Amino acid sequence: MTDIAIIGAGTAGLTAAIYARRAGMETIIFEAEAYGGQIINTPEIENYPGLMNISGYEFASRLYEQATSLGAKLEFDRIIAIEEKEDSSFCLKGTYGTSIDCKAVIIATGAKSRPMDIEGEEQLVGKGISYCATCDGAFYKGKTVAVFGGGNTAVEDAIYLADICEKVYIVHRRNEFRAEKSLTDTLFTKDNVVRMTPYIVSALKSDKRLTGIEVTNTADGSVKYIELDGLFVAIGQIPGNEEFKNLITLKEGYVAAGEDCLTDHKGIFTAGDCRSKKVRQLTTAAADGATAALAACEYLRLN
Amino acid sequence: MTDIAIIGAGTAGLTAAIYARRAGMETIIFEAEAYGGQIINTPEIENYPGLMNISGYEFASRLYEQATSLGAKLEFDRIIAIEEKEDSSFCLKGTYGTSIDCKAVIIATGAKSRPMDIEGEEQLVGKGISYCATCDGAFYKGKTVAVFGGGNTAVEDAIYLADICEKVYIVHRRNEFRAEKSLTDTLFTKDNVVRMTPYIVSALKSDKRLTGIEVTNTADGSVKYIELDGLFVAIGQIPGNEEFKNLITLKEGYVAAGEDCLTDHKGIFTAGDCRSKKVRQLTTAAADGATAALAACEYLRLN
Repeated sequence: MTDIAIIGAGTAGLTAAIYARRAGMETIIFEAEAYGGQIINTPEIENYPGLMNISGYEFASRLYEQATSLGAKLEFDRIIAIEEKEDSSFCLKGTYGTSIDCKAVIIATGAKSRPMDIEGEEQLVGKGISYCATCDGAFYKGKTVAVFGGGNTAVEDAIYLADICEKVYIVHRRNEFRAEKSLTDTLFTKDNVVRMTPYIVSALKSDKRLTGIEVTNTADGSVKYIELDGLFVAIGQIPGNEEFKNLITLKEGYVAAGEDCLTDHKGIFTAGDCRSKKVRQLTTAAADGATAALAACEYLRLN
Repeated sequence: MTDIAIIGAGTAGLTAAIYARRAGMETIIFEAEAYGGQIINTPEIENYPGLMNISGYEFASRLYEQATSLGAKLEFDRIIAIEEKEDSSFCLKGTYGTSIDCKAVIIATGAKSRPMDIEGEEQLVGKGISYCATCDGAFYKGKTVAVFGGGNTAVEDAIYLADICEKVYIVHRRNEFRAEKSLTDTLFTKDNVVRMTPYIVSALKSDKRLTGIEVTNTADGSVKYIELDGLFVAIGQIPGNEEFKNLITLKEGYVAAGEDCLTDHKGIFTAGDCRSKKVRQLTTAAADGATAALAACEYLRLN
């Protein structure tokens, strides 16, 4: 029986594997898509301490090398069920037929940014389109950008960008913002912020990189064109943990756990963007991976 | 007036500076000794995701380069007081005459492992002597080591090492352990663990690296010699935050704060090993640095 099974080979899952293997635990990681998680689409990482100007793909490759050179196994399958057995160990079931017994589980499934589903969007990621202002805002210093969204994250992103960029449009489909009033109050004191409501982003213009967006008024259908260097999409995130809610509690789709990374089910731990928390960065995913693995090792030693 | 002043240029403080600068905040870091903090004495880091086999000194140098290339300023002074002014901004005072006004403060003073104060100890750090089993245990796979200490950390370290090493001595000055019973129960089921109580480590033997220790019985004064590859010292940590308790609450000497890195004083944040928390690793220090800086930036934008 495997000691620790990790679901997800993003930053959190791979870091958990590094820690689990260094503690001498037999460790297997399951990944549904490509190892590395969300970061692999990022052309340049600038905010990860110790690595300057590395691509997301190279960062992911390094983590993969590190985890596997320490003896972690990586298998490609989408885990769709965690079953608990009588002796409190677990069996993980995967789409491609995985059925593996393990003593402890770390859920590190990450989260996905909700896409706009507009033609050309996917190709322009990292070429003018970003889903994370904190991650990529600094690349748009002195430039013109737009934020699409109306919740706390969108408004916080726009405030953040207003201090860095020449001009920031905020595009939102309703006239009212879902964000807290204190945030919108702050946003609209900034004289380089332009409010575009009620509008949606309806088309992307590009010439290798994004050059502008077409926005459509949701009240009267009128169309405008805005020249831009960057578009920050902040219309929500999609966690993917529904299949595990037979055993653990979710909070708005995220795995409910504090910084100790313990779920409310003994033997199941969680790490990274899939955990209910405020800050989702590479550093916090890595910290969670370390914390969850150390907690899982402690659990295995004491049980 | 500086936007954000950071006290301490270890992993947490330098990461906070990277995030603060990328958010466009004027940032100054104060360091009392050498930048890099505790990690600079570690000859090889193996558990920091993305960087394999890097020395602590090189790791620290990279963080320093990263923070300063983004425009953070580093000054050498020991900050001994945070004074609050009428407008809720702060003035930091240093031993060498620093007196600087700032809008927000991040306390990232770290913590120091308590040394044994035995001749040769300092020279053997990284050459057989370590203060962190989770960090360095994997370098002693299949070898003989000792843990010195009797609290939870010492016993957890010994359990952790017992799964990796050939033989683990636990040396404690009393017959009773301060650690929780469940931990000592687990420890003494391991058949490669040898209990040495009531003993203290009284001398170090070395030949370039540590080769053994002399232990002295605290009851009858008798002396024994143990051949060793490694000695893990776990007799406590020393946080250094007493000078700030006029404004913030401490918890056993550490700055009281949750994973949001907010202290109980508006405008003062904390990050890294100086924070009251369970896991103290490079990854968690970096995560704290990011979180504290983002919280400080939000505070500055909304106030």
